[in-house]
Amino acid sequence: MATAADIDAMRRAIALAARGLGATSPNPVVGCVIADPDGAVVGEGFHQRTGGPHAEVHALRAAGERARGGTAYVTLEPCNHTGRTGPCAQALIDAGVRRVFYAVGDPNRQAAGGADTLRAAGVQVASGLLQDEAAAGNAAWLTAVRLGRPHVTWKYAASLDGRIAAQDGTSRWITSAESRADVHRLRALADAVIVGSGTARADDPHLAVRTVADAGAAAVQPLRVVVDSEATAVKPGARILDDAAPTLIAVAEDAAGQPPGGVDVVRLPRADRGLSVPALLRALYERDVRSVLLEGGATLAGGFLAAGAVDRVVGYLAPVLLGAGPAALADASITTIDEAARLDITETVRIGPDLRITATPKER
Amino acid sequence: MATAADIDAMRRAIALAARGLGATSPNPVVGCVIADPDGAVVGEGFHQRTGGPHAEVHALRAAGERARGGTAYVTLEPCNHTGRTGPCAQALIDAGVRRVFYAVGDPNRQAAGGADTLRAAGVQVASGLLQDEAAAGNAAWLTAVRLGRPHVTWKYAASLDGRIAAQDGTSRWITSAESRADVHRLRALADAVIVGSGTARADDPHLAVRTVADAGAAAVQPLRVVVDSEATAVKPGARILDDAAPTLIAVAEDAAGQPPGGVDVVRLPRADRGLSVPALLRALYERDVRSVLLEGGATLAGGFLAAGAVDRVVGYLAPVLLGAGPAALADASITTIDEAARLDITETVRIGPDLRITATPKER
Repeated sequence: MATAADIDAMRRAIALAARGLGATSPNPVVGCVIADPDGAVVGEGFHQRTGGPHAEVHALRAAGERARGGTAYVTLEPCNHTGRTGPCAQALIDAGVRRVFYAVGDPNRQAAGGADTLRAAGVQVASGLLQDEAAAGNAAWLTAVRLGRPHVTWKYAASLDGRIAAQDGTSRWITSAESRADVHRLRALADAVIVGSGTARADDPHLAVRTVADAGAAAVQPLRVVVDSEATAVKPGARILDDAAPTLIAVAEDAAGQPPGGVDVVRLPRADRGLSVPALLRALYERDVRSVLLEGGATLAGGFLAAGAVDRVVGYLAPVLLGAGPAALADASITTIDEAARLDITETVRIGPDLRITATPKER
Repeated sequence: MATAADIDAMRRAIALAARGLGATSPNPVVGCVIADPDGAVVGEGFHQRTGGPHAEVHALRAAGERARGGTAYVTLEPCNHTGRTGPCAQALIDAGVRRVFYAVGDPNRQAAGGADTLRAAGVQVASGLLQDEAAAGNAAWLTAVRLGRPHVTWKYAASLDGRIAAQDGTSRWITSAESRADVHRLRALADAVIVGSGTARADDPHLAVRTVADAGAAAVQPLRVVVDSEATAVKPGARILDDAAPTLIAVAEDAAGQPPGGVDVVRLPRADRGLSVPALLRALYERDVRSVLLEGGATLAGGFLAAGAVDRVVGYLAPVLLGAGPAALADASITTIDEAARLDITETVRIGPDLRITATPKER
């Protein structure tokens, strides 16, 4: 049975894991806490970046000899295979750890089996401690493994009456500076940021992450992606083409235009409207993208929703009324109320004067 | 100085006052608590309905002789004039009350002066205890006295992307049964409910209040108002014409059509779009309406907003995405972002699966 101390240690491991968000793809985020035989915490670690040591290795290094006879708390089942780093199950055995708690089993066949290896070596193993919390912290990666495509968060910022700009197209600013800073935090947690051609043309966005104090992974810039079917929206000199972050332009296989030179381009099949969303997500997955922040515009978001490829909605609602102007979402192939996309609100938070609403689709 | 017991008693008086909301216009809501000389609560009361006894009278009756030498806590300055009931200041003096705390001074010249009368009779008087809380509870009435027009709450119910119906016009239901019940509570608290001709035509709404358990004033039905400029939207047999509640139809002075017989009709000057909002509010004020719930449609709400006649916004947001369909607000004479109506969010509450957002315009 898990004690209060076990729960505290696992909760700490989950918090540590979150510090890797945005920097570990295609790997999951993982946190690890080591306690000595008396229950004192003697080592902590998390998977900090792709190719770097796993959480267990960091924590075992910090603990040193004090790990012997102790307990390891890991948010994900310790891996059993030799990838860029050695198998963590073996490392725990070698360090003399007596008990291992892990929260979520590894759904990745290649890496799974760590629990069996530990048990075979006489280590006590218990799974499922704070499983839901740990899974929520790894939602993007778990979704990506399950569906074979990146986890998609659609973010929008709108007035109370659902407008993303005034009648004349002006939109600076509907939401507050606090909300805009929060969007940078979301970007820092994602592997890729996507905008459509309309947004690229109208806003000439930069899409790189400014330094965000509380995002441990801020140093890793997301891939900037423009869905530019006709290859006409991104012009030479566009801000998105600077070297602040990598950039990918997705164009139709038969695009009339020509993307600017020197930028990574992927050619994709067309859909009824725009490009095939599954093909785009497949291309991103192949580039090790596991989480995507979809920033607009309305038509692109409608295409993702119609394709069943929105896993989370984050809306920033400003206490502003406009009465005219474009809506946040368009062309989602929904014509009558029975076809509406139904979600569950999972969180509402005040961000400065605004409200941030997070929602996830009802189980499909 | 007010003690913790004084604060508790005033807070109770404010809670009592709220039970009269929707039933006291054109009077305010008022609550009163009487404590004996030892501080024990010996009487409670609130102004229950127009023409009925004032809060102080109810509370003094309950307290009887135990009020002598005690303290009265009243949410509004005790009245000094003989209206349908005698002056409350004199009643408190006659009962031998030694101290009076009141929260908000009476802004109504006709009724004010109660504090002076009490002091002249040797009663200790202190004002301002929980003033902000008490004023919030009487916001509609205080606004009406200050502006000489009813307080207006605009209510809407929309999807997360700001739609009030799907592309084909279907809207049953975007929000939950819980939210719809909450709207009935709002109606019960208002003196009048207003809809436009489009809503009258499309929905044939009833607009009466169903029994709402926790609305003390549910027995008083609000005046049902249809803004039907051309007098063509409300047809004989419309549900709004039944006898469940009174009904008023506002038409243009030169309306082409003819409202159904037997219903109260007011003829008003036209504005750029629709009828003059100030003229409509004046007509309602003259009918003793002090608080209005504006339920739609989008154009009517836009007219109210453009006229500076929205004092509170209550939005029910459902975790639903539509991507097409009409917006909650239209034609508010806002063309660019600098003209946007800016508000403050004062409350967000989960109502079943939905979110209720309350906002008030920034100080003008």
